[in-house]
Amino acid sequence: MNVQLVALPGIPEIRGGDDLAEIIGNALAARSTPLDAPCDGDIVVIAQKIVSKAEGRTVRPAEIEPSEQALELAQVTGKDPREIQAILGESSAVLRAEPGVLIVETIHGFVCANAGIDRSNVPDGDSLLLLPADPDASARDLRQKLTARFSVGVGVIVTDSFGRAWRTGQSDVAIGCAGIRPLLDLRGETDVQGRELSATIDAVADELAGAANLARQKSSREPVVLVRGRGDLVVENEGEGAASILRDRSRDLFR
Amino acid sequence: MNVQLVALPGIPEIRGGDDLAEIIGNALAARSTPLDAPCDGDIVVIAQKIVSKAEGRTVRPAEIEPSEQALELAQVTGKDPREIQAILGESSAVLRAEPGVLIVETIHGFVCANAGIDRSNVPDGDSLLLLPADPDASARDLRQKLTARFSVGVGVIVTDSFGRAWRTGQSDVAIGCAGIRPLLDLRGETDVQGRELSATIDAVADELAGAANLARQKSSREPVVLVRGRGDLVVENEGEGAASILRDRSRDLFR
Repeated sequence: MNVQLVALPGIPEIRGGDDLAEIIGNALAARSTPLDAPCDGDIVVIAQKIVSKAEGRTVRPAEIEPSEQALELAQVTGKDPREIQAILGESSAVLRAEPGVLIVETIHGFVCANAGIDRSNVPDGDSLLLLPADPDASARDLRQKLTARFSVGVGVIVTDSFGRAWRTGQSDVAIGCAGIRPLLDLRGETDVQGRELSATIDAVADELAGAANLARQKSSREPVVLVRGRGDLVVENEGEGAASILRDRSRDLFR
Repeated sequence: MNVQLVALPGIPEIRGGDDLAEIIGNALAARSTPLDAPCDGDIVVIAQKIVSKAEGRTVRPAEIEPSEQALELAQVTGKDPREIQAILGESSAVLRAEPGVLIVETIHGFVCANAGIDRSNVPDGDSLLLLPADPDASARDLRQKLTARFSVGVGVIVTDSFGRAWRTGQSDVAIGCAGIRPLLDLRGETDVQGRELSATIDAVADELAGAANLARQKSSREPVVLVRGRGDLVVENEGEGAASILRDRSRDLFR
């Protein structure tokens, strides 16, 4: 197979209330990339930051009153208690708190540092940028508008960079998706010798997220990447969201 | 940026003692892909299975005598005690044992299920295929031979599919690499507004591994994928291996 990853140029700084589908659609329509305009089976991979910005998911630390728990965790982690309060507001559980580290389960069910909240790339440096309230819904909305505009079936993935257990560094993963298979179940398929494949389920949405990150120059505002060549992963309906990738808490051995 | 992922056709079934660098080199030289022959900055991503097969890393369960510990773990997990003995022989620690699940730290330091041992795609169905003894050394050897043959600087990554904490499905990661930067340290770099990027270290070798998996048709013997477009990650020397991706045990909060 042959897969292409192309970062779209021309995405401007995104602000609260911007019509992100319109802006991404314009970048796709500009055809200024090595690829043609979007076609059936393309997958549009979008960094969470611009989704959150367009949805106005910002809070000002100055307006936050830290709780008792936030003050305690600030002592443990050395982080700003107001920032911790913002993290707690987006979390359902604190998994680990150590100097410099706060790992939580978010209200969406993601296990990540700081509930995915960060300060970088926000126009007003005094704001914290939260994850979208419902990244799967964000992806569905963008997919619906892009599909309508171009009259083609595209998949949409919203990504963020998460740390991992056991391995250093961050990797981009899917936090929202629509119109694609997030997991590719190979169980029961056979290899060239007719034996069953041992690899059971491929987390293709996460692999697409990480792949797209390779095409993105972070310092040059390239939040949107077009992936061409895996149209087999694109489905006609909204499909399962990225929430389906989350391991059920009762089956998770590493909490 | 524009990144291309192309699976190389024409890789035959690999057997113990095969000259893998020669075989991969022949596939690269055939130029039967949409890309030209290898050029400076290309990254060759190779599935662990063919590396292990070429290196003869197979064991026969019938020749294994299960230890007391293997018999106990067989009770817990429901797995074959001889297979468990093979896993223990490749492991430095058992992290979790549950029905159907055995998560270990391998002798290389990887945290994964079954020490990466599997049975699928092995010509003789009665054999277990172990991970390479030193996947970074395997990658260095392949890089040295490919670089010499084509007189270009290429990076080499050896990959395997690992499960993850918190998320279902498997994703390909780098278990060995040579001639590339496994981690891209963005700390200190600034975004378009001059603010420091919050994403600190990108696990690019793992993202390349996952990306390559998207170009690979598992049922059609496509174990080698050429990645073009990230020559900036290719270094002139052997570089750090994939071992540098492993989180130090003392800093790992999820064991």
